Amino acid sequence: MMRQAGRFLPEYRAILERTDFLTVCHTPELATEVTLQPVRRLGVDAAILFADILLPLETLGVGLDFGKGVGPRIERPVRRREDLSGLSAPAVDRDLGYVFDAVRSIRRELDGQVPLIGFAGTPWTVAAYLVEGGTSKYHDHLLGWSYRDPQGLARLLEHLADLTVDYLLGQVEAGAQAIQLFDSWGGLLDLERWRALALPPVVRILEGLGNRVPTIFYVRGGAHLLTGLAELPVDVLSVDWRQPLSQVREVVGTGKVLQGNLDPGALLGTPDEVRARTRALLEDGRGGGHIANLGHGILPMTPVANAQAFVDTVQGSGGRR
Amino acid sequence: MMRQAGRFLPEYRAILERTDFLTVCHTPELATEVTLQPVRRLGVDAAILFADILLPLETLGVGLDFGKGVGPRIERPVRRREDLSGLSAPAVDRDLGYVFDAVRSIRRELDGQVPLIGFAGTPWTVAAYLVEGGTSKYHDHLLGWSYRDPQGLARLLEHLADLTVDYLLGQVEAGAQAIQLFDSWGGLLDLERWRALALPPVVRILEGLGNRVPTIFYVRGGAHLLTGLAELPVDVLSVDWRQPLSQVREVVGTGKVLQGNLDPGALLGTPDEVRARTRALLEDGRGGGHIANLGHGILPMTPVANAQAFVDTVQGSGGRR
Repeated sequence: MMRQAGRFLPEYRAILERTDFLTVCHTPELATEVTLQPVRRLGVDAAILFADILLPLETLGVGLDFGKGVGPRIERPVRRREDLSGLSAPAVDRDLGYVFDAVRSIRRELDGQVPLIGFAGTPWTVAAYLVEGGTSKYHDHLLGWSYRDPQGLARLLEHLADLTVDYLLGQVEAGAQAIQLFDSWGGLLDLERWRALALPPVVRILEGLGNRVPTIFYVRGGAHLLTGLAELPVDVLSVDWRQPLSQVREVVGTGKVLQGNLDPGALLGTPDEVRARTRALLEDGRGGGHIANLGHGILPMTPVANAQAFVDTVQGSGGRR
Repeated sequence: MMRQAGRFLPEYRAILERTDFLTVCHTPELATEVTLQPVRRLGVDAAILFADILLPLETLGVGLDFGKGVGPRIERPVRRREDLSGLSAPAVDRDLGYVFDAVRSIRRELDGQVPLIGFAGTPWTVAAYLVEGGTSKYHDHLLGWSYRDPQGLARLLEHLADLTVDYLLGQVEAGAQAIQLFDSWGGLLDLERWRALALPPVVRILEGLGNRVPTIFYVRGGAHLLTGLAELPVDVLSVDWRQPLSQVREVVGTGKVLQGNLDPGALLGTPDEVRARTRALLEDGRGGGHIANLGHGILPMTPVANAQAFVDTVQGSGGRR
């Protein structure tokens, strides 16, 4: 369920009441605990590392912070070619070793029960925060740069790609058994600009990773990018809830497993409605490999009983376990 | 350029420095002034009424306010079937007469120079604020209601449709020469749910309007809704920047004029880049009726020279005027 470790679980909220978000990320025992919470509570078929797509920025010296309730903030945003020289050389073992420690600790605790999925944001999506200095309504700094000096922006994206390779190889070496890339902001771009700007650094990451573990690519609002997504050298394409999987399959073919794509909003309905929608999803996913999942992260206000109804319906209908 | 009267113009910012947003809307002389600013400054081919899609809510007694910098707030959101009985009966002449006065005043000032476009939000999009109580990150109240009690939500949307008919007929009677409907949040829904929830109140509005004036329907992030949009009984379909017009045309055919769809972010590039992108847009729009426009509202930080380069390139290349 994407960010399945999260605010919808009371045991997670209990931890976040006494510890801030970044401290949970930085403390392997706490990251382990919240990663395991949904596995214990719901019996999902995989664990997802508790982390944030912006953590790798900690090794670039840009001043990452998560203010309570205001989302991420970056003290020294990178907004033009000249800013690139101010970035520190990435040193993931030194600055992000706590993530790899968490991966090792989670694998120990899981003890083979279910696999562990690691992840990172795509360079375009990470840049959507790094260039803006945090969450943004208009993404005007990023878009402006992309039109004024696409080559300069490409250099930042390449830099982020190299950092991401180091970061993900660190996760894999520590024990992550699959890697998911989140392209949450790729849908801002039309296909031509997505191919020109967002795709090359993703290909660079996938080449850097080699074929060590299965790869999953998630895009939000990417219905107009499907022909480009179909060509991505990944094992699994994870799509949002806006298009039926059967329609996605027509473009993508059976060469890729599809992941998704129940509307997270559907988990705010009645448990009966959740079960009916989940059964319809499983039906829609036939015709190729399918990992039943939500179409985006589970919403913080989701009733736990509904998350459970989703998981139980998938597992009860011939899914794994 | 959608919300062309706006923050990118220094003469608009000068007015907003001494008067709050809602007061400008409420005062026909000020609404007239800011509506005319982009016509005078840029020589665009149509004026767009200065108003807000949430203004009609003022006749429902829900407590609409625009706090400085925080966006719209609705004091008494409508979140369930039981809340419907608390809504006042719409009385648009009593509560929204200031909009119709502004329309009359703008028409007088324009004196036939360019036509005036009136507008409203679609019921689904207005509900995205009315149900949430303002702007929302997750739209969880709206989505939850839509899954728990779609019939109850449909009653709210029908109520909003009837209000919108009164509101738009008032604009047309006062002199609006075309009407644009903004479905900014329709793209949240998959096609099946868009047809079930968002479409019926839109059809109700279009029927209520009759064929008095040309109608334009704008949707944001609607690439996955195209087959549904193609069936809408409107004259003009306005799409965002994510899909080339030639691709949209393949689905929609030549029976509708297409409006759009330059990325508003492109106006943050150099003027040369703006001209090149605009020429490419005009090329892409061939093969049917085309109203050159942006794919979403002009961004507040757009340099005026770039807005001018866009308008001049359109008009210099055989466009009207």
